[in-house]
Amino acid sequence: MEKLTVVKIGGNVLDDSSALQAFIQEFNELRGLKILVHGGGKKATELSEKLGIESTMLHGRRQTNAAALEVVSMVYAGLINKHLVAKLQSLSMNAFGLSGADGNVLKAKLRPVKDFDFGWVGDLDDSSVNIPLIKNLLQEGLIPVFCAITHDGEGQLLNTNADTIAAQLALSLASFYEVQLIYCFEKAGVLRDVDDESSVISNITTELFDILKAEKIISLGMLPKVENALHCVKGGVREVKITQALDFSNRKKGTSIVLA
Amino acid sequence: MEKLTVVKIGGNVLDDSSALQAFIQEFNELRGLKILVHGGGKKATELSEKLGIESTMLHGRRQTNAAALEVVSMVYAGLINKHLVAKLQSLSMNAFGLSGADGNVLKAKLRPVKDFDFGWVGDLDDSSVNIPLIKNLLQEGLIPVFCAITHDGEGQLLNTNADTIAAQLALSLASFYEVQLIYCFEKAGVLRDVDDESSVISNITTELFDILKAEKIISLGMLPKVENALHCVKGGVREVKITQALDFSNRKKGTSIVLA
Repeated sequence: MEKLTVVKIGGNVLDDSSALQAFIQEFNELRGLKILVHGGGKKATELSEKLGIESTMLHGRRQTNAAALEVVSMVYAGLINKHLVAKLQSLSMNAFGLSGADGNVLKAKLRPVKDFDFGWVGDLDDSSVNIPLIKNLLQEGLIPVFCAITHDGEGQLLNTNADTIAAQLALSLASFYEVQLIYCFEKAGVLRDVDDESSVISNITTELFDILKAEKIISLGMLPKVENALHCVKGGVREVKITQALDFSNRKKGTSIVLA
Repeated sequence: MEKLTVVKIGGNVLDDSSALQAFIQEFNELRGLKILVHGGGKKATELSEKLGIESTMLHGRRQTNAAALEVVSMVYAGLINKHLVAKLQSLSMNAFGLSGADGNVLKAKLRPVKDFDFGWVGDLDDSSVNIPLIKNLLQEGLIPVFCAITHDGEGQLLNTNADTIAAQLALSLASFYEVQLIYCFEKAGVLRDVDDESSVISNITTELFDILKAEKIISLGMLPKVENALHCVKGGVREVKITQALDFSNRKKGTSIVLA
């Protein structure tokens, strides 16, 4: 099977122009088929503040009311996505920006209201990804660049977490490509000691994860990230990497999560 | 040759939700291959005002400084484009939103500074359109939806007039398709008497244009519109129509501009 790398970058890369420049250079050198998924960064928060839009936060997630959805649609799908695509194009990477609505490439389901109303937030499942369209774009030599906006197929745009989009793309494409999923992270990888950047755990398998979890070495915010990564490798993704954007393709750096 | 209809809508449709709804219904009924090009509307002006961005106007055109470019990138490529695409998708039209940067589909040249510095504005020419990519999208059953944002291929996004984009797409695709270009307009068509909506001139040929121009029946703002339309039909576009959005596909309405 042909290799496909899905790379996710977040605010820590997008908000720092020299980090972004370094990332783009390295992304350019990455061989084989590739997909980029980007989050938001400070811009959306800044614009919301300037427009006087208040956001309710819960478990680190923003409630997406109608005004907030307008802001993220503008910032993610407009400003950041097109800026990134133009930058990649300037290095002769044939980048192609996408929201989930475009070609119905990612159809999400509105998150049901339970304890908290997340607002216009969409969740993905195994039926969400328009696999033939993505395969066609990749075959044409294009590099899909996904922003964190999806739609419900009924005319409504939705805000969807970029980590989730990257994971679902990797999972859904794993039957057709040898997929590596790379999460560019603010730290050097999954750390044994959160205060020691040199304590990166190089490899995590299902077995090791159970030990690390029992020993509470992996906990808090890192737990769902690693659990999601394991879900991906169990679903056929060859490797999930959690590493720094600066040299994300360096095989010796970061944490590699594999099945066994 | 297969038929292709390129339809351009502007603020008068985008800013009026019932007009937009009516337009989308009619666009849905249009048979054959189709492309939609949209302008901006009030949203960009509103957002600029809210953010305190002042815009310099000349000959009815806005100077696009860096802050204004951010606004139009957000509003055109993000908010309006994705909103439109999601609406079309909800009616099972396989719409696909594009800025010129995506897949390098429209490469523009920064407008040179002469009497006036237009700022980050891009002009198109016969080499601007990525014809193979558009043909591929159309062949896949997709409906390209273009916003008025292009790029220069060197990492810079540019603001490009939506009428110009529609005209250049029609011209560049005229060798491969039987192209009809439709400008949805606020009036019923080109009028003999600007104050009388019933005075629509049904057909304008090159010959008739010279007469109407000499008689000053076509003048002011209408002159460049009709001149551009004639440029298109001389370049191989089968027909250019200037008509109202409400029933743009009604053959009996509006002004049809043809070669002879």
